Amino acid sequence: MQEFTYNIKCIIEYDGANYLGFQIQDEGQTIEQCIKESLDVIYKDNIKIYASGRTDKGVHAKGQVFNYFTNLYIEPNRLKYAINRGLSQDIKIISLEYVDINFHSRFSAKSKEYRYYIKYKDYSVFESRYKAYIDNLDINSMQEAIKLYLGTHDFTSFCSADVDKRKSCIKTITKAEIIIKENEYEFIFEGDGFLKYQIRRMMGVLIAIGKGKLDKSVINDLYINHTKQMHYPVAPGCGLYLYKVNY
Amino acid sequence: MQEFTYNIKCIIEYDGANYLGFQIQDEGQTIEQCIKESLDVIYKDNIKIYASGRTDKGVHAKGQVFNYFTNLYIEPNRLKYAINRGLSQDIKIISLEYVDINFHSRFSAKSKEYRYYIKYKDYSVFESRYKAYIDNLDINSMQEAIKLYLGTHDFTSFCSADVDKRKSCIKTITKAEIIIKENEYEFIFEGDGFLKYQIRRMMGVLIAIGKGKLDKSVINDLYINHTKQMHYPVAPGCGLYLYKVNY
Repeated sequence: MQEFTYNIKCIIEYDGANYLGFQIQDEGQTIEQCIKESLDVIYKDNIKIYASGRTDKGVHAKGQVFNYFTNLYIEPNRLKYAINRGLSQDIKIISLEYVDINFHSRFSAKSKEYRYYIKYKDYSVFESRYKAYIDNLDINSMQEAIKLYLGTHDFTSFCSADVDKRKSCIKTITKAEIIIKENEYEFIFEGDGFLKYQIRRMMGVLIAIGKGKLDKSVINDLYINHTKQMHYPVAPGCGLYLYKVNY
Repeated sequence: MQEFTYNIKCIIEYDGANYLGFQIQDEGQTIEQCIKESLDVIYKDNIKIYASGRTDKGVHAKGQVFNYFTNLYIEPNRLKYAINRGLSQDIKIISLEYVDINFHSRFSAKSKEYRYYIKYKDYSVFESRYKAYIDNLDINSMQEAIKLYLGTHDFTSFCSADVDKRKSCIKTITKAEIIIKENEYEFIFEGDGFLKYQIRRMMGVLIAIGKGKLDKSVINDLYINHTKQMHYPVAPGCGLYLYKVNY
């Protein structure tokens, strides 16, 4: 691997509604592609971005983290300004710093926090891209059920069908709670890592419990029985935010 | 004209970001087209919509009004629910009532209120569709300048080039004020009617004054001299809301 002098860590927020997701794909607009294009212009180089992980189509970020390496020093405030100038208004670097050369956005991460928003009344068209809208949920059942996600479990039933099942689907969730606000619910999940679709599937099951369509016992059942997860809906991506990556 | 039994008045809000504007066009997605499609399915008929006026591409509404005529009675709550079901999440009927057969959304309107939002700090990607972001504005100059819009003036200089100038461009503005909030400015304009682009051009001039590029005296000058308006920028549509129509 080429030796680099500088390692730069960026925290970004983005409105994922117009993007196919974070990671560069062969076709279609992605967050990573937009950032890379801005960096490549600034450095006149082919910059490789290392992110803390992917986010899916339509999913937002308040605190996604990526880092990249370079040999060219640019003063941090000037650099942040220059990168943002090259980005459209729905992606923004909110913090940028030069870090230890060994820092890696993904491998150095200790935990990740995701939040999910469900508006249950006073629905506004101006929030339709940013929150799911579901009314008549039994929030008490959901409060009880969400506790069952805490701890170390086999989340095979909660991940996307295309996740490589030879890799471990055993993950530890250290925080799973609901904050009840005036007209919305905020769901907070923190853990050592999350599989593709995991939170949206966990939310899908929680919503079905809130609607009285499932009993909370289904969660423990799904940890053991990996064959029936496809019956349960995946919650909409628009309500989901990669909120923070802890190092 | 065909005789109808019922006249229905609807107040709607919409996120205009994904639309070419309110009015139906030959090509592209418009608010009116979406509403008409929902109504046509419900009534199995070709419903004509009468709106209070158009809004431009990307412009939002908190309180746009339209009415339509029909001979089929449907209970108001059921009707509202049915229309909204046929609309995407960024358009919503917020109120619906059966009104006098002589009511007309445009001709019965006494005044209209528009609001414009400029974020001047704490810019968030999640507001980029809904507010303009401009910092370092001299708000005191703008406060003084906005008063010059009050009263009855010839707004020829402030309307779109394609407005038919044989019609009167004399309009009366009864309210023009700025509310200073923690991290944004809210501009309120009320008047008997507004020409195409009028508020965005009025805002464009105000912003240029706030940036120190123009003196407020330019406003009185523009009322008399109609040849130089094209030098001044039109403020972005994303900050503008048709806020209320008064009857």
